[in-house]
Amino acid sequence: MSFFPASLETLIDKFASLPGIGRKSAQRLAFHVLALPDEEARSFADAIVDAKTHVHTCRICQNLTEDEICSICASDRRDKGTICVVSEPRDVLSIERGREYNGTYHVLHGVLSPMNHVGPDDIRIKELLNRIASEDVEEVIMATNPDTEGEATAMYISRLLKPFQLKVTRLAYGIPVGSNLEFADDATLNRAIEGRTEMF
Amino acid sequence: MSFFPASLETLIDKFASLPGIGRKSAQRLAFHVLALPDEEARSFADAIVDAKTHVHTCRICQNLTEDEICSICASDRRDKGTICVVSEPRDVLSIERGREYNGTYHVLHGVLSPMNHVGPDDIRIKELLNRIASEDVEEVIMATNPDTEGEATAMYISRLLKPFQLKVTRLAYGIPVGSNLEFADDATLNRAIEGRTEMF
Repeated sequence: MSFFPASLETLIDKFASLPGIGRKSAQRLAFHVLALPDEEARSFADAIVDAKTHVHTCRICQNLTEDEICSICASDRRDKGTICVVSEPRDVLSIERGREYNGTYHVLHGVLSPMNHVGPDDIRIKELLNRIASEDVEEVIMATNPDTEGEATAMYISRLLKPFQLKVTRLAYGIPVGSNLEFADDATLNRAIEGRTEMF
Repeated sequence: MSFFPASLETLIDKFASLPGIGRKSAQRLAFHVLALPDEEARSFADAIVDAKTHVHTCRICQNLTEDEICSICASDRRDKGTICVVSEPRDVLSIERGREYNGTYHVLHGVLSPMNHVGPDDIRIKELLNRIASEDVEEVIMATNPDTEGEATAMYISRLLKPFQLKVTRLAYGIPVGSNLEFADDATLNRAIEGRTEMF
């Protein structure tokens, strides 16, 4: 049953096709867009086309960029000997937010997931291997998510990296800073005990 | 801090400006759009411009339509003597879904809300009065939401309608069908008792 004009229905459908947006939310968003001034609605539409046209992946690290090489790979203040392997572009943002890490990144654009038919050729592993073969890399930090798929992906890639004889590390597991032992789950607590460090 | 390309940041900003979409969700939506095939991303953008260009309000009932007069006002199977006054276009959808009501609608596009500086001239009350003055209307059903603002709006309009000497009704209050008395709030239960009807 459709009581909305066709072009409005189409817009609602488009919003509803986005992840995490149900039919009701899509309606609300479409009504909001309809209520925008003409110019703003058009600039929303332009933003979609612009991003789609200008954004592509960095030739080196596969992160999103508008240039051939992203700002991190292009910077001469970053340590090119360390590569932090993450699954998504947003993970780069998370690590950069800490202002601690000074190496470069490699964005896989996914994780291995046999259930979803994502195999090694579907994510940017080949590009990582080419990079390690041609650049002077000392350490690769596996920073995929600490879940089953992220774990398996880190394991898979670390095996591929073995022949290169470089340092391959994994992000530390443990209790989050500022959290409460009471609410930590068993797996995390066990990992925190296993990975305990000497205080002096 | 921005580590995303400018055009991607712009797109994230656009999504984040939508109601109920936070920064993180906006990122997720923008990444989703980036991952769409070119054609689909463009058709999303087109849908925004199309809806904005083609959708306007019905000359008679102020509901959204692509034509001069909406399909309900244009239909000769609807009872033109009854007008159901709702605040938003989506409310028309809700009532139509019941397949019971056969009259026409009038969409106010808002409710009176002194807190948000929405006065009688900001919603389509004038259009309703013109319509009642020129058409042969027998009954006006006030179907604004049963909240403070919807209530006040219904009250305000019903007073304006008094001189026209027609039947002005309000949607019934009571316990929702299929619900449980245990979970009904006091106000609703009181209204349900006040509005009780004879069974035989």
